Amino acid sequence: MLKIGVIGVGTVGRSVVQILEQNADMITARAGCEVVVKSGVVSNLDRDRGLDIALSTDPLDIVDDPDIDIVVELMGGVDEPFKIVKRALSNGKAVVTANKALLAYHRYELQSLAADIAFLYEASVAGGIPIINALRDGLSANHIESIVGILNGTCNYMMSKMADDGVEFEAILKEAQELGYAEADPTFDIGGYDAAHKLLILASIAYGIEAKPEDILIEGIESVTQDDIAFAKEFGYALKLLGVAKRDGDEVELRVHAALIKNTQMIAKIDGVMNAISVVGDRVGETLYYGPGAGGDATASAVVANIIDIARAGGKSSPMLGYNKPLEHGLKLKKSDDIVSKYYLRLKVEDSKGVLAQIAKLFEEFDISIETMLQRPIDEGSANLLFSTHEAVERDIQSVLAKIEKLDFILNKSVMIRIL
Amino acid sequence: MLKIGVIGVGTVGRSVVQILEQNADMITARAGCEVVVKSGVVSNLDRDRGLDIALSTDPLDIVDDPDIDIVVELMGGVDEPFKIVKRALSNGKAVVTANKALLAYHRYELQSLAADIAFLYEASVAGGIPIINALRDGLSANHIESIVGILNGTCNYMMSKMADDGVEFEAILKEAQELGYAEADPTFDIGGYDAAHKLLILASIAYGIEAKPEDILIEGIESVTQDDIAFAKEFGYALKLLGVAKRDGDEVELRVHAALIKNTQMIAKIDGVMNAISVVGDRVGETLYYGPGAGGDATASAVVANIIDIARAGGKSSPMLGYNKPLEHGLKLKKSDDIVSKYYLRLKVEDSKGVLAQIAKLFEEFDISIETMLQRPIDEGSANLLFSTHEAVERDIQSVLAKIEKLDFILNKSVMIRIL
Repeated sequence: MLKIGVIGVGTVGRSVVQILEQNADMITARAGCEVVVKSGVVSNLDRDRGLDIALSTDPLDIVDDPDIDIVVELMGGVDEPFKIVKRALSNGKAVVTANKALLAYHRYELQSLAADIAFLYEASVAGGIPIINALRDGLSANHIESIVGILNGTCNYMMSKMADDGVEFEAILKEAQELGYAEADPTFDIGGYDAAHKLLILASIAYGIEAKPEDILIEGIESVTQDDIAFAKEFGYALKLLGVAKRDGDEVELRVHAALIKNTQMIAKIDGVMNAISVVGDRVGETLYYGPGAGGDATASAVVANIIDIARAGGKSSPMLGYNKPLEHGLKLKKSDDIVSKYYLRLKVEDSKGVLAQIAKLFEEFDISIETMLQRPIDEGSANLLFSTHEAVERDIQSVLAKIEKLDFILNKSVMIRIL
Repeated sequence: MLKIGVIGVGTVGRSVVQILEQNADMITARAGCEVVVKSGVVSNLDRDRGLDIALSTDPLDIVDDPDIDIVVELMGGVDEPFKIVKRALSNGKAVVTANKALLAYHRYELQSLAADIAFLYEASVAGGIPIINALRDGLSANHIESIVGILNGTCNYMMSKMADDGVEFEAILKEAQELGYAEADPTFDIGGYDAAHKLLILASIAYGIEAKPEDILIEGIESVTQDDIAFAKEFGYALKLLGVAKRDGDEVELRVHAALIKNTQMIAKIDGVMNAISVVGDRVGETLYYGPGAGGDATASAVVANIIDIARAGGKSSPMLGYNKPLEHGLKLKKSDDIVSKYYLRLKVEDSKGVLAQIAKLFEEFDISIETMLQRPIDEGSANLLFSTHEAVERDIQSVLAKIEKLDFILNKSVMIRIL
């Protein structure tokens, strides 16, 4: 019999306890032994959770309990769970966590501390989709060329709704908050940070690359408007918040931002709160994984799958990065300035003579070539200029935008969206 | 060092040898040891395959070679590989196969013979998509409610082309044959048999159900016409060849047939030669897996992933069905007659009085209720009647169709397509 302690018995923790109870027969058959939740840790003992397990408020009651085999960490945050997980591993306990922030900052340290003790975190990326499993095992014969993911359900819900209903960002955000899809303070989701945490976890498995959120390009969806949606529709694109990891020689590009993607791509067809990850391997080509990225039961499904893995393997685990020893030549993080992409630009300008000529001259100066251009009047005296470019270097686009901002006929901060 | 023997060095076998050679550094790091192809078996030694391995024509040269650790079976067929694989397992060798026909008939016998020797077959279903991995490991916390798969790329290519180009079946088939997507004798693909083999493998992993192709409902796509495509488009459906496994109480429904699916479903959005499998688990909800279902490199990617699995686990393997011991209560195969579905019917009739009344009376007699009806003139004297029904039992639909066939104003064999 394997004994589990759950630190953090909120929505996901409750589901973990319930799945292990209600699907016990099947899980025993799959795991090869009984799996029982012995105890849980909560912040408030007064609330009745309707669960038949011992509860306390001190994580050490689980982490230091010699009777516990697997610690399930679902507390959230970074510093506190970091201490708890380190101590659990030092005590020789297997650890399963769904905590993406913890992993975005400390995965290498924890991984090396774990050595051959199981330390698994399938639930930390894209909830119920077994994408880490696919990268570590199913695609293990492949060098990974790229990963492109819809990793944040809130953003995807909002972008889908903007495209379907023609309503502006602020109105959709309010609706998403009322439906419980977006937090009261939505910055973590709509600013791209949540997606970035998940991207870093995937990239470390695919490329063994060690980077922190501060090191990579992270942009949100706050500046997207119906003008951009209209442009996307006109030219056959969908507009999504994407996490992108792409290998280029001995460098890896990591970035999170709103992007235009051709409608014919599978990832462009993912609507609503769902998540999806497209992975291109050098041998298999493109495979894509789709499913619920959040929710108690979906996330708990991944946590319990990891628990069964551990039971099957007798508490040992092949290393999470998929490598038994580090590859000789690690890959480096590409500088954000060096990213090459096609770009979409929206400039609000005074509707007067010579405007286009001046902008065109700036583009030429930085060797940026225009693919499409649309001018849309806003009112009597102003218009939107919408451009898409051929491939250009991020540094040049940023420079040209800085120069454009200073022109006196520019009425608003310009918007730039990368085209995938 | 692990030594591999490859029986059948065709397109997939060559790719297996090449991946192990060209991605050797990465694979050694992932497997924890060197993996080397020692020898291969071919039917014709005269052809130069450009590979640097020992070749012979006798499978026993590999199967009885004490130096070989893993036998990769890629010969195709059923009886001959069955003997070979049995002997390999008896000799204590791990086996990896991509042979879906072998597995559709003998998976239980081989699985039980293998006991804890690794016997893996990720490549047998949906080529490069790690769907078996997902079912066994990623979704192991879930009771599987249903599996709906686009499991045959040839059929999906043909159905997509019929919808896009408005061309009839025979013309598309010829084109698919010219492009190499369809065989000279296409029956195995377009008759649904290939998809059925794959469905049986998936169902045995999800439900532990033992059934052979002869036991289940298998229909092809030969009778689909542009009339059906037009109906589908009009009512918001896509038309696909699907493999369906569905749990209903203690029974499992297994069937392969053309089906109408609402356009909003993810599986309806899969176009061209690609494969996809939608899996609904009781906890995770729907997840979907998409990728190339055929091709040398994609299939070899799955074969090599299994080889790496075996290396990591030191030649042992948790059982392929995901269960360490059988579940107490096995599920039974549902009779095809008992299937409940919505149906689409196309009848070619004489355009004369009273026709609709007689047909409506028959529907009423069998308690089948009509959801939509379209009449489309064909020429002066004839018309197509297109119906969709509310939920009905397969037995009743078959009975009503048998009666309708006998009416003297019916001009052609009627067409029935299930609606998912």
